[in-house]
Amino acid sequence: MKSFTYKNPVKIIFGNGTINQIGKEIKPYAKKVLLTYGKSSIKQNGIYERIINSLDENDIEFVEYANIQANPILSHAKKGVEIAIKNKVDAILAVGGGSVIDESKAIALGCTNEDNIWDFVINKAKPEKALPIFTVVTIPATASEMNATFVITNDKTMDKFAYTNELVYPVASILDPELTLTVSKEQTAYTSVDIIAHSIEAYFTKEDDFAPFLDGYVENLVKSVIASDKILLQDSKNYEARANLMWTATMAWNGLTNCGAGCFYANNHQMEHPISAIYGIAHGAGLAILLPAWMKYFKEEKKERLSKFFKAIFDEDNVDIGIKKFEDFLNEIGAPIKFKDIGIDNPDIEELTKLAIIGGYQRGSNLKEEDIKSIYKLGL
Amino acid sequence: MKSFTYKNPVKIIFGNGTINQIGKEIKPYAKKVLLTYGKSSIKQNGIYERIINSLDENDIEFVEYANIQANPILSHAKKGVEIAIKNKVDAILAVGGGSVIDESKAIALGCTNEDNIWDFVINKAKPEKALPIFTVVTIPATASEMNATFVITNDKTMDKFAYTNELVYPVASILDPELTLTVSKEQTAYTSVDIIAHSIEAYFTKEDDFAPFLDGYVENLVKSVIASDKILLQDSKNYEARANLMWTATMAWNGLTNCGAGCFYANNHQMEHPISAIYGIAHGAGLAILLPAWMKYFKEEKKERLSKFFKAIFDEDNVDIGIKKFEDFLNEIGAPIKFKDIGIDNPDIEELTKLAIIGGYQRGSNLKEEDIKSIYKLGL
Repeated sequence: MKSFTYKNPVKIIFGNGTINQIGKEIKPYAKKVLLTYGKSSIKQNGIYERIINSLDENDIEFVEYANIQANPILSHAKKGVEIAIKNKVDAILAVGGGSVIDESKAIALGCTNEDNIWDFVINKAKPEKALPIFTVVTIPATASEMNATFVITNDKTMDKFAYTNELVYPVASILDPELTLTVSKEQTAYTSVDIIAHSIEAYFTKEDDFAPFLDGYVENLVKSVIASDKILLQDSKNYEARANLMWTATMAWNGLTNCGAGCFYANNHQMEHPISAIYGIAHGAGLAILLPAWMKYFKEEKKERLSKFFKAIFDEDNVDIGIKKFEDFLNEIGAPIKFKDIGIDNPDIEELTKLAIIGGYQRGSNLKEEDIKSIYKLGL
Repeated sequence: MKSFTYKNPVKIIFGNGTINQIGKEIKPYAKKVLLTYGKSSIKQNGIYERIINSLDENDIEFVEYANIQANPILSHAKKGVEIAIKNKVDAILAVGGGSVIDESKAIALGCTNEDNIWDFVINKAKPEKALPIFTVVTIPATASEMNATFVITNDKTMDKFAYTNELVYPVASILDPELTLTVSKEQTAYTSVDIIAHSIEAYFTKEDDFAPFLDGYVENLVKSVIASDKILLQDSKNYEARANLMWTATMAWNGLTNCGAGCFYANNHQMEHPISAIYGIAHGAGLAILLPAWMKYFKEEKKERLSKFFKAIFDEDNVDIGIKKFEDFLNEIGAPIKFKDIGIDNPDIEELTKLAIIGGYQRGSNLKEEDIKSIYKLGL
């Protein structure tokens, strides 16, 4: 095991009906919040009303800032900062999935620092503080509700970068599985793939040493996603399966999968960001194409590790059969495993590779140009 | 999954040589600390000197308070409070295992509140604050370095109670596996059993619902202990095995094993506390006697759960064979599995039962008098 520092102060409030506690949690921190969300669906499904009621009961005013898009963009975050400052809010309340929470973190930083958000992201400047952030999760996937990271795209340069700073840990996050009962089959598939990808990035790229706890922790995350998905395919509103999937998502990217991993690389995330940036597909869809491709490309070099992984997941130590079973699982939940499955018949592999290399400069990478190109090609 | 709230703000600094960072971590919080420890062994093995150097480098004064005993007692904690107040310390630095950290938490509460520590433990009074606590772990077992609980014995009444309050979360804990290379075979065995017991209390007594993540998390903890122990039996100074065991210990009782478990009972801990209180044996030794006894007593009632457990741990779904394999493991690491193995030929089962029932009143219990007596008898 390699050295690490871990500190994660986020308060998680998990369970059926916990959405009603959001006002009480915010009260000690704020009299007025910026309420951020994506589409207006939260107004149709009752979530909006329940949140407003909880804020009202606790005498908390709010200003709305909606239309945060999947793969959030810098220009929209900047407008959010303007509105937050103009209205003198004391905190941000993000209601949604990873994109809404991510952009809200960017806004929280932008409100309290004179420098530009992008200067922080590219490490040109260092923020001093951030507004307190609260979240109500409606689509579990990125664990943004329990980590200090956000991903944002600079819509001028099309650079999609991740940024981590402990100032943007949410103060408290509501994980109410009931809110996720209506997540579509498609979104469930994409978020499941995202959770699996988060879990295994370090597992497959860390320096390989003896770490039974860490290895088993990761294998358990993947098994847990599959266990929930099998039930949800038959019964999409199964509360227990939704609850288990929600907690698994949070536990997959709250830092614990990296504790002791030492240096590792997020190969699949590095290569996916260009796909969703160029083709506007869901992040999880891009990952579903890349994961089996990555496994095939590295099946000799990572043979032992892949065999251990598939033994744990499918009780199968043959790597080829393991990859096939993994593809079958992706097919079963309705995720694409080839570019063409999602309507990208001729992906621009040169351009994707170029962007992936740039992403690698920012985040660090062990992939050579040739690796990247070959993996993309295996997705054809 | 049942509802829960989880918030654990402890900063973990893990790795070889991290002991040298303790002064830097304390500096923002204190100019003078109460340095608590158990026996003088830390003066022989170099730990004391390295800590003093780190404090010196950061201009932090210290007052020593030693001789904290295994199963710490209230009267000693109270003397610690006197010394801490007299010397106007700003923080407590606990260097040791669970007992030292537990008593240090009691002292941290006692220093800042007018009420008696015991009034807090029995919920007669509520503390308002606590001195900041820092820890350097030398014997990994109880996870006290990453939880808000301490166990203390009132040496007037012989009541041994656990108390939880988020005020006593350590600010930061140093987990330097190198410090544990010299832990004896006996202590390694007892602490391993303690870690396993922590892991499985909720697993076996929670309301049984669908919770693949939580179940797998617990099974992984137990497998991880066994994996480290197998190596340490051959090579007691294996850094990687010590590191994995250390992190497993912390992850076994930092709250995550209870997330989603709902109502559960610590049967084995409830029944062990009287054994170590009366016979002065190690907590882990008492647990090693009780765990197989508990499994045998409940093997019909908990058949399905035990079968699932042994399938995960030993790839064995027959409960009788599973229990036997578990006893073999305990034997192999050198833990007792019967009272007589540790020199208690005629345990006073009436008295043990009486104390266990009293403990059950304080902590909550699902065990009837008859259950308790029968389980103790299965340890004969």
